[in-house]
Amino acid sequence: MSESSSSVSRKSGLPPGSLVHVGEVLATETRVSVVDYTTERSREFVARSIDEITRYRDTGSVIWVNVEGLINVELIEAIGQQFDIHPLVLEDILNTQQRPKFEQYDEYLFLVFKVIYPADDGVSVNYEQVSILILDDYVFTFKEKQDDIFEPIKARLRNHKGRYRSLGADYLAYAILDTVVDLYLSLQDYMDELIESVEEDLLASPGTETLATIQRIRRELIFIRRSSAPLRELLNGILRSDSLLIGDGTLIYFRDVHDHVLRVTDAFDTYRDMVTGLLDIYNSTISNRMNEIMKVLTVFASIFIPLTFITGIYGMNFAYMPELGWKWSYPLLWVGFILIPVILLVYFKRKKWL
Amino acid sequence: MSESSSSVSRKSGLPPGSLVHVGEVLATETRVSVVDYTTERSREFVARSIDEITRYRDTGSVIWVNVEGLINVELIEAIGQQFDIHPLVLEDILNTQQRPKFEQYDEYLFLVFKVIYPADDGVSVNYEQVSILILDDYVFTFKEKQDDIFEPIKARLRNHKGRYRSLGADYLAYAILDTVVDLYLSLQDYMDELIESVEEDLLASPGTETLATIQRIRRELIFIRRSSAPLRELLNGILRSDSLLIGDGTLIYFRDVHDHVLRVTDAFDTYRDMVTGLLDIYNSTISNRMNEIMKVLTVFASIFIPLTFITGIYGMNFAYMPELGWKWSYPLLWVGFILIPVILLVYFKRKKWL
Amino acid sequence: MSESSSSVSRKSGLPPGSLVHVGEVLATETRVSVVDYTTERSREFVARSIDEITRYRDTGSVIWVNVEGLINVELIEAIGQQFDIHPLVLEDILNTQQRPKFEQYDEYLFLVFKVIYPADDGVSVNYEQVSILILDDYVFTFKEKQDDIFEPIKARLRNHKGRYRSLGADYLAYAILDTVVDLYLSLQDYMDELIESVEEDLLASPGTETLATIQRIRRELIFIRRSSAPLRELLNGILRSDSLLIGDGTLIYFRDVHDHVLRVTDAFDTYRDMVTGLLDIYNSTISNRMNEIMKVLTVFASIFIPLTFITGIYGMNFAYMPELGWKWSYPLLWVGFILIPVILLVYFKRKKWL
Amino acid sequence: MSESSSSVSRKSGLPPGSLVHVGEVLATETRVSVVDYTTERSREFVARSIDEITRYRDTGSVIWVNVEGLINVELIEAIGQQFDIHPLVLEDILNTQQRPKFEQYDEYLFLVFKVIYPADDGVSVNYEQVSILILDDYVFTFKEKQDDIFEPIKARLRNHKGRYRSLGADYLAYAILDTVVDLYLSLQDYMDELIESVEEDLLASPGTETLATIQRIRRELIFIRRSSAPLRELLNGILRSDSLLIGDGTLIYFRDVHDHVLRVTDAFDTYRDMVTGLLDIYNSTISNRMNEIMKVLTVFASIFIPLTFITGIYGMNFAYMPELGWKWSYPLLWVGFILIPVILLVYFKRKKWL
Amino acid sequence: MSESSSSVSRKSGLPPGSLVHVGEVLATETRVSVVDYTTERSREFVARSIDEITRYRDTGSVIWVNVEGLINVELIEAIGQQFDIHPLVLEDILNTQQRPKFEQYDEYLFLVFKVIYPADDGVSVNYEQVSILILDDYVFTFKEKQDDIFEPIKARLRNHKGRYRSLGADYLAYAILDTVVDLYLSLQDYMDELIESVEEDLLASPGTETLATIQRIRRELIFIRRSSAPLRELLNGILRSDSLLIGDGTLIYFRDVHDHVLRVTDAFDTYRDMVTGLLDIYNSTISNRMNEIMKVLTVFASIFIPLTFITGIYGMNFAYMPELGWKWSYPLLWVGFILIPVILLVYFKRKKWL
Repeated sequence: MSESSSSVSRKSGLPPGSLVHVGEVLATETRVSVVDYTTERSREFVARSIDEITRYRDTGSVIWVNVEGLINVELIEAIGQQFDIHPLVLEDILNTQQRPKFEQYDEYLFLVFKVIYPADDGVSVNYEQVSILILDDYVFTFKEKQDDIFEPIKARLRNHKGRYRSLGADYLAYAILDTVVDLYLSLQDYMDELIESVEEDLLASPGTETLATIQRIRRELIFIRRSSAPLRELLNGILRSDSLLIGDGTLIYFRDVHDHVLRVTDAFDTYRDMVTGLLDIYNSTISNRMNEIMKVLTVFASIFIPLTFITGIYGMNFAYMPELGWKWSYPLLWVGFILIPVILLVYFKRKKWL
Repeated sequence: MSESSSSVSRKSGLPPGSLVHVGEVLATETRVSVVDYTTERSREFVARSIDEITRYRDTGSVIWVNVEGLINVELIEAIGQQFDIHPLVLEDILNTQQRPKFEQYDEYLFLVFKVIYPADDGVSVNYEQVSILILDDYVFTFKEKQDDIFEPIKARLRNHKGRYRSLGADYLAYAILDTVVDLYLSLQDYMDELIESVEEDLLASPGTETLATIQRIRRELIFIRRSSAPLRELLNGILRSDSLLIGDGTLIYFRDVHDHVLRVTDAFDTYRDMVTGLLDIYNSTISNRMNEIMKVLTVFASIFIPLTFITGIYGMNFAYMPELGWKWSYPLLWVGFILIPVILLVYFKRKKWL
Repeated sequence: MSESSSSVSRKSGLPPGSLVHVGEVLATETRVSVVDYTTERSREFVARSIDEITRYRDTGSVIWVNVEGLINVELIEAIGQQFDIHPLVLEDILNTQQRPKFEQYDEYLFLVFKVIYPADDGVSVNYEQVSILILDDYVFTFKEKQDDIFEPIKARLRNHKGRYRSLGADYLAYAILDTVVDLYLSLQDYMDELIESVEEDLLASPGTETLATIQRIRRELIFIRRSSAPLRELLNGILRSDSLLIGDGTLIYFRDVHDHVLRVTDAFDTYRDMVTGLLDIYNSTISNRMNEIMKVLTVFASIFIPLTFITGIYGMNFAYMPELGWKWSYPLLWVGFILIPVILLVYFKRKKWL
Repeated sequence: MSESSSSVSRKSGLPPGSLVHVGEVLATETRVSVVDYTTERSREFVARSIDEITRYRDTGSVIWVNVEGLINVELIEAIGQQFDIHPLVLEDILNTQQRPKFEQYDEYLFLVFKVIYPADDGVSVNYEQVSILILDDYVFTFKEKQDDIFEPIKARLRNHKGRYRSLGADYLAYAILDTVVDLYLSLQDYMDELIESVEEDLLASPGTETLATIQRIRRELIFIRRSSAPLRELLNGILRSDSLLIGDGTLIYFRDVHDHVLRVTDAFDTYRDMVTGLLDIYNSTISNRMNEIMKVLTVFASIFIPLTFITGIYGMNFAYMPELGWKWSYPLLWVGFILIPVILLVYFKRKKWL
Repeated sequence: MSESSSSVSRKSGLPPGSLVHVGEVLATETRVSVVDYTTERSREFVARSIDEITRYRDTGSVIWVNVEGLINVELIEAIGQQFDIHPLVLEDILNTQQRPKFEQYDEYLFLVFKVIYPADDGVSVNYEQVSILILDDYVFTFKEKQDDIFEPIKARLRNHKGRYRSLGADYLAYAILDTVVDLYLSLQDYMDELIESVEEDLLASPGTETLATIQRIRRELIFIRRSSAPLRELLNGILRSDSLLIGDGTLIYFRDVHDHVLRVTDAFDTYRDMVTGLLDIYNSTISNRMNEIMKVLTVFASIFIPLTFITGIYGMNFAYMPELGWKWSYPLLWVGFILIPVILLVYFKRKKWL
């Protein structure tokens, strides 16, 4: 949450095209891990210089360069120069407040989007921007921080299981995107559980902390929808693209990711209605409770206030109050003290207050 | 309901293309019933092996293979291999959290959607995912569980009534879709009744359980709309499709289904407004009732509090209180005790509180 | 209202294409009135058999067959066979829960829509489904019940006033549609009056019956909008249609109907906002009234409760209460009894409570 | 307001094409003023017969015929015959409940829209329907009543200032439309002021009349939006029209009007949000005030009710109440009478009630 | 805010095409600063006459003319004449209530939009209209007032850093637009902070001033959205334009601005939801608090009112009240005085009121 409200405009005032990391710094160093694989073999290593990255060009293997942490601007600039990437693309990679988008260039494709998944603590959500550059035999991924969200892909490349290693850079890009959309699906699970727990709270005993949770869900949803909705457009862009960088055989896989994205965004759209529903229930419950409280007050007050008035009468000290001297006054009054409440209680019962 | 909140992402972490049943398991075994019919004859049996399914290929008859229960992944994989179905389609069949969609392949058409209908108990709703593969002379249906929703179609094929047996696989597919949309219509009936009963409750005596029912309807509607809205798109896809698998004569029938789908989705869209209306009425009723309660309290308190004050005055023990000794004090006070309430009651009457 | 919630799905389970009357039966018999007219003459009679209908074919006159009551399925089937109407169209005519639509066939045009108009009792609304088949020289109208909504058209055909008799079947179809849209305009009048009367009630003395009326209007509007909104599409379909059955000269008349439909649907769309507004006013009024009630209670309680406390003090029976013996205690207390309310009243006045 | 709710359907039952004035009669006579101008000269007169209008045909001048009051149906029929106007257009001119629209005919263009502007009294709004017929050298305007909204245009034609007189009928039509849209802009001013004054009221002392004003604004806005929204479409129609009656040089002026219309309709769309906002503030203010009232009641009651109970105890007449005889009972009690309120006040202070 | 509600229609009544400054006058004089630069050199000066502006025509340099203050209508008219600008464009420049738009002319491009940025005081927002004319080698910017929002661009032109000076007028126009959109991004920051501070207030102690702030944010947002939403269209216009005035190499930069605009408008759209959320929380909090208050009142009243009634009984002065003489009456009563509150408190505890 705090991320989104941080310095959106930190770069304002700089000339366009200046390469500066814009956004919260989520990693203090830049780690570049490379996977270089062909159908036959697969190799993983951590690159320390730009040479280690460019060395494998045109060797017929697919090279996946995963850059984690965006603090090393020089490195990203060097990659840009070596692979002839447009300065505005490099700028977009470094600015972590991008709107998800797909851009097609002659020599490469550029994708940028948010990865959102529930944090391990179970109460918060992790945000991270990921950019992908798809070249002929290179795939670059740029991430804001070091984590293991791409670990499953690496594992599969390592074990040469599945179609992974036999297919090209486009299939690797698909696998990355698919992994990311799966994280959105787990976010959907997380949201489902959160909303369900709030619903249970509402039926049991809604309090101010329930209200705070509803508000938190609403805010999270606003950010999640803002990040996920443009994914539809992004995938549409890929599906309609005529780039040779994506093979015909791989397009069907992107279509599958597109279906998943539609499912996720459909779900997030309906969550909005659900949260409104939660708030409605909360408010109705509060009103109901107020009614209960008022009923109790009214029943107590309506019964005892008239009785107290009666006692008041015979507490007066007038010299001439004949009833005071009668023998049956007091017992008769007790009859009234019992009858009046009974009558009123029957009346309230009829009004369905009790 | 619980289904939707179950493990959406159970498959996260698996490589794409792995065939695994994703979703709640609704049937413990997989039952394959086959109907093989031509204009002249019709035969029904339960297939135990893949051979019993493939045996009838190219015999000129239409073969409907109805797979109930998705636990037998091997069988579905075998069907995929025998009929050359794309692995992603098989994956979609096995993943029961699909968004309804229509996909056109060269050799077959793929449809997946939800069947929703009121349960026999009258208070809950059954969800089930159904996938249809339409080949030249085969129609495969994959269902999550064993039930009799397709029984009417089978009955008609058996009795060779109607146009059923004289028309091809595309007409069978239409009949299945039509049956499913009819179930949505019965769901509409069910919702109409539910909403009407809530309306009656609201006029009679709305309580917290009414609120719970409204919330339940709202949640059901969200899921129903999420499942039914993409049906429009699905039917549109079929109508615009140029596949040779759907004959020109059959298209008009799909257009008819399309009309029904529009009717159903129109209705479900308006239910949203209705539920909002129910909640508005509920809240207004609660407010009204609070007003009633407060009026009673105010009338009681406003009448008796001043009177009690007066009795308090003459209950004081001052040595010099001349009124205490007067003969007509007490009777006069009684005049006040009667007049003050009368005046106040007239005042409240004028304010239309009584 | 009740109609809409009746058996939407009565037909579920029947094979598609079976001719059955679906929906509430609004007429116990089927009455077929025929108007056969040319520029020169006009003849009206009630047809008893299918022959009386088909007899005039190709005689150069325009024949309008008005079928009222849908219970005689055989007759409609006979018309279908004689004029070669597609079974699905006949099905749609018999199913009175159709979504309004326009369908173009080679030999005929098919229109189905709802007629809605205020009932004579002034408090309810009449619903009826009307289907129109436009052939070269025949116009068939199918209505659910016998009423006189088409009487003005017949009157004009009779009196050979206007352009009616000189123009063909397409112009007759236009005249029918125009009459129907005029009924919608009268419905708009009726709604305007209803909403205005509720507004007046709200300003005067809103009660629970006002709330019930608002809810009733809301429900009516949902059904009216559901029935009228697709009329736009229907007219658009006619205007964009390239059928030779509608002459170029007549198209401009349909465009005029289209304008009216837009006006009607615009109005019904804004009524939704108005009803929401009514409810808002209702709720605010209830809140306002609650405020009034609470003010009265608070003013009474705040003034008399402290005074009663004071009387309580001097009603105590302590042996040593020097004030009780003082001569001016009682008169001084009276000063307090007058001053305290005055001060509090000024305070409440300042708070604008009085 | 009342206009809109008047007899929308007065014409129902009449054959289409009958020329009848439909709508409220706003002028008891029809006044026809003519301006006949060329670049060199300009002449104004009031026409008494159709001849005076047609006489200037083909003289090379532009003739503007401004018909005020629609009661003289014969005149409008005569114009229709003389200038060969389609009967449906004449009908639309006479029916003052038209939806704004633009229609292109071979020989003329037809525009109909509403003019809305704040009345001189500053509290209400004037509605009037204006139709324009643009012919080659004639411009007809039909207004519901006599007023001076077109006075500025006449003044400029008179003084031969601006480009007015040198340009043709299309430019005159533009000038009329521009004047009308300027009136909408003044309506926007008026609405701005109205909303601002309500906002000030809300902060000062909202009462039921504020609520009534908000409701009035809402209703006005519904009608204004219904009248102004179709203007976008109308202008779009003109801009996309390929009619030779509008010169290329004039089109840019209509584009300018289109921009203004977008500005006006944008503004009216946002007013809806504003009014919702006003109502929200109103309701929240009422709730706030209720809170204030309840706090006062609660503070008074909570302080004095316990104290009164204590005085009640020692007002009892038991024979054995040792405290009554103690010397320090009464002064000690006074300590309690002072301490208890102090403690409660501190408690309420902490709760931020005071 | 006040600006928007000022005289929208001050010009109503003037003939179209009259050059008059419409809108609030934000600068009392017109200041024309010129930057004339080529790749090699850059010169800045303040122009005092139209000659100083036109002198550099066709010298191969790019000339940026920044006009601040619109009071000098003659100057703008002179520029219009010298550079052959359409009168309607000049009118639009002078009317500061334009809807943002892009217009393509043969010889120049015209852009007009609002610049909105947080004022230095941190509580208000600055509005200003900026128009841009892009010619072959001239760029004109017209601003309502003198400020330093374009200072960063000038600084960069001065220091010949970046690509600025080597690229043409189109790139300069891009730089200006980019600067403006960056200001919107800083506005987004400002709004984020404002909303966050309100949220904190809501959790701490919401009062009427919180409500006023929410209303203020809502109003600001309405105006911001009205000003920013058309920017999407404006940029789309530029991107789709086929004007030779924008080079192919520069288009990609405008695409980048377009992405930023989408981000900004997405954010402002979601703020609407957020503000609704804030108000919901506010109202729920008020309701909650009312509940708290009522609970306190009810607990106090329900406990002490019955007790006071009991004291009332034994305060009566009947001659025959046997209990008064009993020795244990008074102590027993005290047991009741302690037990009754304990029982009630346990009851309230169970109801979760305490």
